[in-house]
Amino acid sequence: MRLQLEFKGVHDMKVILVIGDGISDRPTRFLNGKTPLQVAEKPSINLIARQGICGVMDPIAPGIPPGSDTAHLALLGYDPVHTYTGRGAFEALGVGLEVRENDVSFRCNFATVNEDLLILDRRAGRIKGTGDKLAQAINGIKLEHFPEINVIVKHSVEHRSALILRGPNLSRMVSDSDPSDTNYPIQKVRALDNSSEASRTACIVNAVSKRFHEILTNHPINMERRANGLLPANAVLFRGAGTLPQVKPITEIYEIKALIVAAGAMYRGVCKSVGLDVIDVPGATGTFETDTVAKAKAAVENLPRYDYILIHVKGADNASHDGNTEQKVRMIEKIDALVKHLLDNVDLESVFIALTADHTTSLDLRKHVGDPVPLAIMGPGVRVDSVEKYSEIDCAQGGLGRIKGIDLTPILMDFAGNSKTFGA
Amino acid sequence: MRLQLEFKGVHDMKVILVIGDGISDRPTRFLNGKTPLQVAEKPSINLIARQGICGVMDPIAPGIPPGSDTAHLALLGYDPVHTYTGRGAFEALGVGLEVRENDVSFRCNFATVNEDLLILDRRAGRIKGTGDKLAQAINGIKLEHFPEINVIVKHSVEHRSALILRGPNLSRMVSDSDPSDTNYPIQKVRALDNSSEASRTACIVNAVSKRFHEILTNHPINMERRANGLLPANAVLFRGAGTLPQVKPITEIYEIKALIVAAGAMYRGVCKSVGLDVIDVPGATGTFETDTVAKAKAAVENLPRYDYILIHVKGADNASHDGNTEQKVRMIEKIDALVKHLLDNVDLESVFIALTADHTTSLDLRKHVGDPVPLAIMGPGVRVDSVEKYSEIDCAQGGLGRIKGIDLTPILMDFAGNSKTFGA
Repeated sequence: MRLQLEFKGVHDMKVILVIGDGISDRPTRFLNGKTPLQVAEKPSINLIARQGICGVMDPIAPGIPPGSDTAHLALLGYDPVHTYTGRGAFEALGVGLEVRENDVSFRCNFATVNEDLLILDRRAGRIKGTGDKLAQAINGIKLEHFPEINVIVKHSVEHRSALILRGPNLSRMVSDSDPSDTNYPIQKVRALDNSSEASRTACIVNAVSKRFHEILTNHPINMERRANGLLPANAVLFRGAGTLPQVKPITEIYEIKALIVAAGAMYRGVCKSVGLDVIDVPGATGTFETDTVAKAKAAVENLPRYDYILIHVKGADNASHDGNTEQKVRMIEKIDALVKHLLDNVDLESVFIALTADHTTSLDLRKHVGDPVPLAIMGPGVRVDSVEKYSEIDCAQGGLGRIKGIDLTPILMDFAGNSKTFGA
Repeated sequence: MRLQLEFKGVHDMKVILVIGDGISDRPTRFLNGKTPLQVAEKPSINLIARQGICGVMDPIAPGIPPGSDTAHLALLGYDPVHTYTGRGAFEALGVGLEVRENDVSFRCNFATVNEDLLILDRRAGRIKGTGDKLAQAINGIKLEHFPEINVIVKHSVEHRSALILRGPNLSRMVSDSDPSDTNYPIQKVRALDNSSEASRTACIVNAVSKRFHEILTNHPINMERRANGLLPANAVLFRGAGTLPQVKPITEIYEIKALIVAAGAMYRGVCKSVGLDVIDVPGATGTFETDTVAKAKAAVENLPRYDYILIHVKGADNASHDGNTEQKVRMIEKIDALVKHLLDNVDLESVFIALTADHTTSLDLRKHVGDPVPLAIMGPGVRVDSVEKYSEIDCAQGGLGRIKGIDLTPILMDFAGNSKTFGA
C-alpha cells in the first residue's frame, strides 16, 4: 500500500539526504549475480523507493569513476570539473583546522621508513593512541630557508593527519610524496605546472618532509615503539595537495540552514567548505561499527533548526574495497535501520527523504567504478513511479530517469520550495 | 535463459563495438508501422540485448541529425561540437594519404560538365576502373600563381577521390564547389570567414578546379569515353574542406591498443585520426555485398593484439537513403551473422560486446534524422535489465536510460577497466 503524501500548502519543507557511501555495486559473482542492494533485507529503504520517485544518477558523468570528494561536491550541486581544487583542504577542514583562501593543505600519513627512506609501512602499523602526540611534535615547525611559511599539523584518526602550509606564493600544483605502495622510497615532490609558486611549494614540502623525519626518528614515542618491537612512525607521507574551492555556499544560494552528520574528516570538510554546519555524534565512527541509528537520531533532533541535513554513512565502501561481501550487505541493513528511524520520527508531510550513494564501489574489483548510483526521493508531491524496490536495476526503471550528480541539489531544493524561477 | 557472465578477477578485458551504420530507423509505413530492427530475424543481436544492458543514445544531442563523421567522433568519445574540423581530412586519411597538421583536405568527385561548366552528372556515370588513372593525371599539378602549394590527389572508389592542399597560410573555412545537384554550374568557392587565409584558399581551390578541367577535358580516357558514348569525367567537384582534429588519441587517453575494421574511407579516416589502427579485410566492401562474417573473423583474429576493436558495417544506411526497405532488413540480418560469429568465437567472460548505430536513417525520409539510436552492451558485471529484444522501442526501456554519444567510450572503457578515477 502506498502512503498518500499530500502537499498541505505549508511551504516550510525540509530535506534529509542519506548518502550510503559506495552502497551501489555491480552484479557480483559473490552474490550469484545479484548486487548487495538486491540481497540486503531493507524494508525501510524499499519503502522510500515504493513511496517515492526513483532513478539512477551519474555522480560525475557516465563511465567516470568518482572520487569521494568530487562526488560529494557534485551531489551538493557544484560542477566538480570546474570547482575541484584537490582533496587536502577538505581533510584539513574536516579535522577542525581553520583553512584560509591561499592555504595549501595535504592529507598526511605517519609511515615507517628505513635508513634509505624506503617505505616499510605506509601506516606505521596503524598506530593507535599516539598520533596526537606525534602530530604535536611536528606542528608549528619552522624551516631555515622559508621562515615566512607556517606549518600546521593536526591529527585525525589512527595514522592520519592533515597539514596546512600557510604563507605567500604557494601553489597546490605539486605531486605526492606518497608512492601509494611499500618498498618504494619517499617520492621527491615535484611541481605539476611551470609556475614559480609550484616549484617553490615542492621545495618547501620536501624540506618539511626532511625536517619531520629528523624530529620523528628520535622522538621518545618512536624510541619506545622500537624498544617494544613496533614499527616507528618516523616519516610523514604527503598527498592530495589542495586549496579551498572558490564557490558560493549552498546555504547562501538557497538561503537555507544546512547540516552534515558524518564521522569521516573528508566528508565533513567538503560540506564545511560549502557552508554546512558540522556536528559530532557519539558512536558515529566512519567505520562498520558506526551507530547508524545515532546518526538518524542526531538528524531528527536537529531537524527543527535546519532545512537540509545530509547524513553520510561510510562502511559499505570500505567493505567493497576489502572485498567483504557480507559486511557490505550488513552495512546496507544498518543503513536501513537509520532510514527506519527517520521514517518513524519525522513528519513525512513536511520532510523529503532521499537516499543515494556517492559512487558505485565494485566488490569484484574492490574499487570505484563508473556505473550510476540508485536514487530515491520520497515526499509530498513527488511523481511516485512503479519502482517497488531500491536497487541499481530497479531504480533505473524509475521516473527520474538517468540524471547527473549536480542535478540532485536543485531537484531537492525545488521540492523543498527553495528554488528560484529562472526567467520570468 | 540468461547466461551468467561473471567477473573472474582477471582485469584484462577487451571491447568489441559493432556499429551498424544507419540500422536505427523510425517506424515506417513500408513495414506496417514497425522499424526494420523490429522486423529483421536477428537472434544473435537479440541475445546481446537480453544478456546485456540496453538504452538509447543521442549520437550528438536530442533531435540533431548526425553526420557520419561527427557521429563517429562522438562515439569515440570526442565532443564533436568542439573537435570537428570538417570531413576532408578523414577522407584523405581514409584513402591512405598522410595528412599533416596544416593540410586542408577535400572530398572530391569526378563529374561531367558541359562547355558552360554546367554539371550534367555529379558522378561522371559512376566511372569504374579509370578513376585511378584520372587521379594520377591531376595529382601533383603546380599552380602558376601559387607555386608554394602542393596538390595531392588519391583515388578512392568509383568517382570518389581525396585531395590535400599543402603549403603555408591555408584555411579550411571555404565553401564547396559541388552544388549537390545537376543542372547547376560548378560553384565558385568562397571564403567562409574574414581571414586572409580563407580568401586565399578559395582562390587556390578555384585555380585548381580550373586546371583540373583543362587537364581532364583532353585526357585520352575521356576522349575514349566520349567516343564510346560515355559521359567524360572532365571536372572535379570539391566539398568538405577539413583539417585534422587536434585531439589526444583515444589510445593515449586510455593506454590501449585499438583497431577499426571498416571498408569505407571516411570511417577509417576518423578512426585513424584518433589513433586506431586500420586493417583491410578481403570481402569487406562497404556496400550491401560486404562479407560481414569476414569482418567478424578479422576482429576475432586480431583480438589478442588489441584492447578495443570497432567493427563498422555500412549497407543499411545506403539502403535507407535509397528507400530500399527489404535491403535494409536483410542488411540487419547480415549484421546478425557477424554478431553470431563474435558470440561463438570470443571469450564472453573477458570481452564486452556492444552494438549500436551511428545515427538513425529514415527509410520514409531517405535521410539521417535526430532520433536516438538503440544500444546494448553485454559483458561480465553489467547490470542486466529486462529488455528482451534489440530495437529502438525495446532498448528505450533499458537500464542505460538515454545517454549521449560521447558517453559511450567512457562507459565501455570503464567496463573494460581502463578508466581513471576523477578525484580522490
